[in-house]
Amino acid sequence: MKIVALAGGVGAGKFLRGLHRVARDERHLITIVVNTGDDIDVWGMRICPDIDSVTYWLEGSMDRERGWGRADETFNVLEEAGRRGLPTWFALGDRDLVTHLQRSMALAAGATLSETLGNPNRTWFLRRRWRILPMSDDRVKTMIAAEEREGLVHDMHFQEYWVKRRAEPRVRKVWFEGASRAGPAPGVMEAIREADAIVICPSNPVVSIGPILAVPGIRDELRERRDRLVGISPIVAGAPLAGMADKLMPVAGLEVSALGAASAYRDLLAGWVIDELDRDLASKIEEALGVRVAVTDTVMRDDDVAAALARTALTLLR
Amino acid sequence: MKIVALAGGVGAGKFLRGLHRVARDERHLITIVVNTGDDIDVWGMRICPDIDSVTYWLEGSMDRERGWGRADETFNVLEEAGRRGLPTWFALGDRDLVTHLQRSMALAAGATLSETLGNPNRTWFLRRRWRILPMSDDRVKTMIAAEEREGLVHDMHFQEYWVKRRAEPRVRKVWFEGASRAGPAPGVMEAIREADAIVICPSNPVVSIGPILAVPGIRDELRERRDRLVGISPIVAGAPLAGMADKLMPVAGLEVSALGAASAYRDLLAGWVIDELDRDLASKIEEALGVRVAVTDTVMRDDDVAAALARTALTLLR
Repeated sequence: MKIVALAGGVGAGKFLRGLHRVARDERHLITIVVNTGDDIDVWGMRICPDIDSVTYWLEGSMDRERGWGRADETFNVLEEAGRRGLPTWFALGDRDLVTHLQRSMALAAGATLSETLGNPNRTWFLRRRWRILPMSDDRVKTMIAAEEREGLVHDMHFQEYWVKRRAEPRVRKVWFEGASRAGPAPGVMEAIREADAIVICPSNPVVSIGPILAVPGIRDELRERRDRLVGISPIVAGAPLAGMADKLMPVAGLEVSALGAASAYRDLLAGWVIDELDRDLASKIEEALGVRVAVTDTVMRDDDVAAALARTALTLLR
Repeated sequence: MKIVALAGGVGAGKFLRGLHRVARDERHLITIVVNTGDDIDVWGMRICPDIDSVTYWLEGSMDRERGWGRADETFNVLEEAGRRGLPTWFALGDRDLVTHLQRSMALAAGATLSETLGNPNRTWFLRRRWRILPMSDDRVKTMIAAEEREGLVHDMHFQEYWVKRRAEPRVRKVWFEGASRAGPAPGVMEAIREADAIVICPSNPVVSIGPILAVPGIRDELRERRDRLVGISPIVAGAPLAGMADKLMPVAGLEVSALGAASAYRDLLAGWVIDELDRDLASKIEEALGVRVAVTDTVMRDDDVAAALARTALTLLR
């Protein structure tokens, strides 16, 4: 089976470890289309937080406790950077840094972002069973209009809002700079067209999946494959498990609930997986959106839960 | 007194600590014109080994034992870079890396190399009493034609010859790529014109001082100021104290001796300082080159020796 997964950062990373286990057992192939709206330049290097997060989770090199970056990490460069007056709010670890150096070198040499992923030839893909594609090789920036205080609105990069300002300012607007001029990265449209199953990972619908859907062509192509598309709710009992979806969903006109998250994809979904805690929403979602709903444990404490969740999602499509 | 010093790396760094002490005591101002022929791009960053070496020595942040890089250094990024397949023969420390990141960011933003040095306004220069100018803001590359084996000659960057190949291949030729099209960096010519004393630091005459003299205009301007120019021999008892001058001087037609080193500057020198061990060469050098020679301890075990050496050099010009 060919599977396409649309992915943001940590929630997607956890889920994809489970999906990957299923793929290994059942000989599926996973093409992961990752959000790049979060990408930002730090210290002259290109940082792709969601691509790196998903990669580290799948490779098992992530720091599970901290939730971002690599395990066994040190921060000696960061410490020195602080002493020398470089901005340090976007914390880069010493090991992590090599990822950014390597990517930036390749980009400077003229490679596209897709090419920097060193993506697999067919043999390698078949052996590993997953590959990552950026949503686009064109630059898209997720921007936030944040109200600093009554009437004072300031446009900032999503990372500035989330990491530097810790999601404190009130959000007035979210948009994806450059999205309308961007094109899907090579392989994305083909993968969607050929997919037997398409999974929207439990990621923020506004700033993780939103940018992917904003790349012209992608949403239309997904809609054509609606019968094989399933999503997992990132909202459990009216709150996100991590991140700031509760602050951004209302701005996008979405209720902060498993129903609200599903309605972000109302034109795309055949199935939707929600948590046990939201069992009472199941029939409401089925009626409101005309989708099949599965109820299961979605809180991914470990890879076993993630794998069971992945199986449940795929089963919804049978 | 306004002093100009022409400088390479470590030997210059040690000497300049002494010269700086004299400058502080006697209220001199030192403009250091530094070789940039060694500069190389590593991991997408611009590395300026001689500029950094001189800066670290003057700031006191150098690693005196190791001879290069910074004290209290760690190499976590380097270790990871090795695991990830990046070249590691040019070892960059974690703290040192910030220097290169910062410079590369500024260059990418359109700054000249001079501008990246964050050079002092007048007040700052007067307080600190030293400033560094690169020899040129244009790219000059010191190149080595190295004989790998009989008849097989391979052109390589100086750093590749020196650091990667540990000066093992036989050298057939040394040249400075880009030098003929380069211009002196802003301030260099003015500093030479206004100097009361010009000092050639005990650096490799071929690959440290050679590139500076190869920038069109600089050698001519120095020749005009010959009466106030003094140099310190980097060769003691027929061998360099550090580095590979013994391998490169013969290629440039220079004897590996205090006389040979002086003869690299035969058109420029009023005075030349040699080591006690070379006392018997003093009159020979005076006769052959028509310069005043001072004999003293030139082996800079500490800042006291370096300061005494600096005083001796300046005294030769009185």
